[in-house]
Amino acid sequence: MADRRFYRVGEPRPLAALAAIAGAELHGGADPDRLIRDVAPLGRAGADELTFLDGARYLDDARRTGAGACLVRAEHAAALPEATARLITPTPYGAFARAAAAFYPGAAGPGSGDGAPAATEVAPGAFVHPEAVLGPGCRVGPSAVVEAGARLGARCRLAPGAVVGAGVVLGDDCVVGPGASLGYCLAGDRVVVHAGARVGQDGFGFALGEGGGGAHLKVPQLGRVLIGDDVEIGANTTIDRGSGPDTVIGRGCKIDNLVMIAHNVELGDGCVIVAQSGVSGSARIGHHSVIAAQVGITGHLTIGPNVRLAARTAVIRDLPGDQTYGGAPALPVGEWRRQVAAISRLGKRKGGGEQ
Amino acid sequence: MADRRFYRVGEPRPLAALAAIAGAELHGGADPDRLIRDVAPLGRAGADELTFLDGARYLDDARRTGAGACLVRAEHAAALPEATARLITPTPYGAFARAAAAFYPGAAGPGSGDGAPAATEVAPGAFVHPEAVLGPGCRVGPSAVVEAGARLGARCRLAPGAVVGAGVVLGDDCVVGPGASLGYCLAGDRVVVHAGARVGQDGFGFALGEGGGGAHLKVPQLGRVLIGDDVEIGANTTIDRGSGPDTVIGRGCKIDNLVMIAHNVELGDGCVIVAQSGVSGSARIGHHSVIAAQVGITGHLTIGPNVRLAARTAVIRDLPGDQTYGGAPALPVGEWRRQVAAISRLGKRKGGGEQ
Amino acid sequence: MADRRFYRVGEPRPLAALAAIAGAELHGGADPDRLIRDVAPLGRAGADELTFLDGARYLDDARRTGAGACLVRAEHAAALPEATARLITPTPYGAFARAAAAFYPGAAGPGSGDGAPAATEVAPGAFVHPEAVLGPGCRVGPSAVVEAGARLGARCRLAPGAVVGAGVVLGDDCVVGPGASLGYCLAGDRVVVHAGARVGQDGFGFALGEGGGGAHLKVPQLGRVLIGDDVEIGANTTIDRGSGPDTVIGRGCKIDNLVMIAHNVELGDGCVIVAQSGVSGSARIGHHSVIAAQVGITGHLTIGPNVRLAARTAVIRDLPGDQTYGGAPALPVGEWRRQVAAISRLGKRKGGGEQ
Repeated sequence: MADRRFYRVGEPRPLAALAAIAGAELHGGADPDRLIRDVAPLGRAGADELTFLDGARYLDDARRTGAGACLVRAEHAAALPEATARLITPTPYGAFARAAAAFYPGAAGPGSGDGAPAATEVAPGAFVHPEAVLGPGCRVGPSAVVEAGARLGARCRLAPGAVVGAGVVLGDDCVVGPGASLGYCLAGDRVVVHAGARVGQDGFGFALGEGGGGAHLKVPQLGRVLIGDDVEIGANTTIDRGSGPDTVIGRGCKIDNLVMIAHNVELGDGCVIVAQSGVSGSARIGHHSVIAAQVGITGHLTIGPNVRLAARTAVIRDLPGDQTYGGAPALPVGEWRRQVAAISRLGKRKGGGEQ
Repeated sequence: MADRRFYRVGEPRPLAALAAIAGAELHGGADPDRLIRDVAPLGRAGADELTFLDGARYLDDARRTGAGACLVRAEHAAALPEATARLITPTPYGAFARAAAAFYPGAAGPGSGDGAPAATEVAPGAFVHPEAVLGPGCRVGPSAVVEAGARLGARCRLAPGAVVGAGVVLGDDCVVGPGASLGYCLAGDRVVVHAGARVGQDGFGFALGEGGGGAHLKVPQLGRVLIGDDVEIGANTTIDRGSGPDTVIGRGCKIDNLVMIAHNVELGDGCVIVAQSGVSGSARIGHHSVIAAQVGITGHLTIGPNVRLAARTAVIRDLPGDQTYGGAPALPVGEWRRQVAAISRLGKRKGGGEQ
Repeated sequence: MADRRFYRVGEPRPLAALAAIAGAELHGGADPDRLIRDVAPLGRAGADELTFLDGARYLDDARRTGAGACLVRAEHAAALPEATARLITPTPYGAFARAAAAFYPGAAGPGSGDGAPAATEVAPGAFVHPEAVLGPGCRVGPSAVVEAGARLGARCRLAPGAVVGAGVVLGDDCVVGPGASLGYCLAGDRVVVHAGARVGQDGFGFALGEGGGGAHLKVPQLGRVLIGDDVEIGANTTIDRGSGPDTVIGRGCKIDNLVMIAHNVELGDGCVIVAQSGVSGSARIGHHSVIAAQVGITGHLTIGPNVRLAARTAVIRDLPGDQTYGGAPALPVGEWRRQVAAISRLGKRKGGGEQ
């Protein structure tokens, strides 16, 4: 069970109710009234806990699990011990997300909590400018700052040391993590900005060697960052504001930690960008694209919609949508795999030389 | 026009005056008294706004622009609609920077504003140690901290949550962004440190496996970070202090977001380092080198001056100056391109294998 | 000598005493009573200062050094000028670390200082929740925050703007740098968290396209971050908490700046991870592995123990321990070098094409 110092579990629920919440079907023979008290990982779940099995990688763990119930695909159900009740679903991970959110509403993100306080709370040591506006039920942590002209919707939470800059607009149920900062930014509802993320600072706009004496001349950055509803921005990620056009993060995008989004980038709705990837200035990524870790995308390109990029891909040309790519420079996945295989053989040839 | 919640535009200016500010020549036929009220991107500029066209990539947008005036190279001037006045310059981007700074002096960086207040302002909730010294006209935001012995020049601005550590020296007109921190650092004038940048923490100095029981032994880091005038340091970038020698960032260097500069690195004047690149300990980069994104440079090397490194280059040996390199490991650009082309063919051969 | 604005040097020590501290042997002919006043780099050390020579790279500097004494391997001792006393050791860098720590106890890390104050000090502008517990001798800087239920051991130091979240436990002699934040975390003794590091935020757990309308569904993250004794975490590094299992950082691990550690990762004891590397979710790295800069490790893998990964390595399969690997995808070092050599020849062939 989750550490009680950090998490508070809700009431136990009968298996049938959990199956309904998760969107799964209770396998014949299981007792629909059996009480489940918590969720837990496959390897640690006990007799009154629910777990999940997603994919074949953890089949061995599944055979040994002590879980009382398991969300599982039909084709893997036979691997579970007899004592484990099966909840059949084609998407065990998503089903588990729903069940876990039922037990831990506060951990499932903004807007899903057990009711924020009706009154706005500003902690001692926080600073809210008199010309800022906080919606009902906002909570502002110690050392957090809200500058002049900022407007926060209902039930926003600012963690300790978070900074909401002058004129920034946040919708309802937004969360800004410890030490994160937002400037020149208009955000929708249920936006989550994790610890240390930086939104809205100057883009990297310099006219190289044109400042007199060969110095680099700063180009004023006059745009904003527009963030759609349900966006999540990872810890220490940086999103620069537009130079005149805006930087746009589409509705429902999920961005991991230490990602760089440069000025004027436009992300379509529902994009996923994994850790340490970078998108250069004025690139456009179409809807529902999934970009794995440590990818680099050159500026002024158009990609997607609905592309998938393997980890470490380097994109230097436009990429048509609805395909998977990998490699540096990026290739369609089949061609990339052949290339990797051919390079792999290079290291195995005799007389390959030494270095 | 720029969002009035965030930006305040200056007075309208006649075309002839703007041409003079930008360093461009008004093309025959344009009315020198025509009033321009703002700057705007090519695709959005209106009849009383100035835009720019830099390079052939956006010629189509140029043909459709509604801009009242456009900074443009002579060879592209014919592409613009008749109603758009041409301001001819060989460097439209730099010229635009100057014009935009005239309309938005506050957005052009430190020292270019419309006059900082004469009196120093320390916000409620800020902490300035009694043994710190602030020059005239400094502004210290809420939750910002200036520790003992720090000395700030005139008109420095510390954003909310910025931390200037004990003994740190900043020159005039420096800006420290939200939540950024500086320690063990001596900086010149007009230095800009963006949100969350970390300057001066311990370098990664360990004697591996020598601490007893195979533990890693920390080597005290006794140097500083020396930062020249007009340096800009990007959001969440990290610059470690020297181990005994200093880490040196030359005058006029521009460093983007999420860059890593290790201990004892020396950057010559006017270097540019784009996002997510890393420079390992004790490397020396010569003057006016330009390092694109996601580059890695091994420690104890000497590079440059005046090299250009393509994105994702991996440098593992010294590189002579005045050349362009790419690849991993780095090669002169011509050789690198041949290598990329040869590898590209590998993936296209028959029988390339499968994975 | 180190800048007196930032560092305070201890008392001079006779050469014999320093040799004992460093674990080195005084070479015949040197005066054991000679007083040494400081440590300094090879190129800058003076007649009353101690330096070190580690490896052949800096032999030329050694020949010209003005140092009074030098920690040096036996085989390099002859390179030093006659006036420089030799302190012979097989590990000059580690020996130097010990000597430098004797002169600068405060710079050698937590627990090695000259005695923290007996009384706990909470700076003005800091916030310590009444339900938090601080051990004796803790110091909490301005704008730092300790939330409800957090427990700090003896002599912990929180720099300005540091945030220790609700329920977090720190052992004795821990240091949290400026603006760093910790949540959902249990840490041992002598843990150092550098400026801006982010520990314990939500892992990147989404069930893609399962939230209704194709939206991504957040999976509640219910684990913690467990940090062993003597761990050091670099500036702006991010370590996500576990999703249900914990994220585990073994005792004595040293993690550099801008590193990404995803949820459920387990690092064995004594691992070293250099800057800008990333470890994806649920990967396990065995004891005493050394991961160079900009490496990427795919999720759900097992590596090590005691592997070494060259910079920029991409790991996509399990790797057996006690070996060195490089390349993308990773290969044993010999095979990787042959591959690099073969690729290098590709760019040199005639008819290599142009791009």
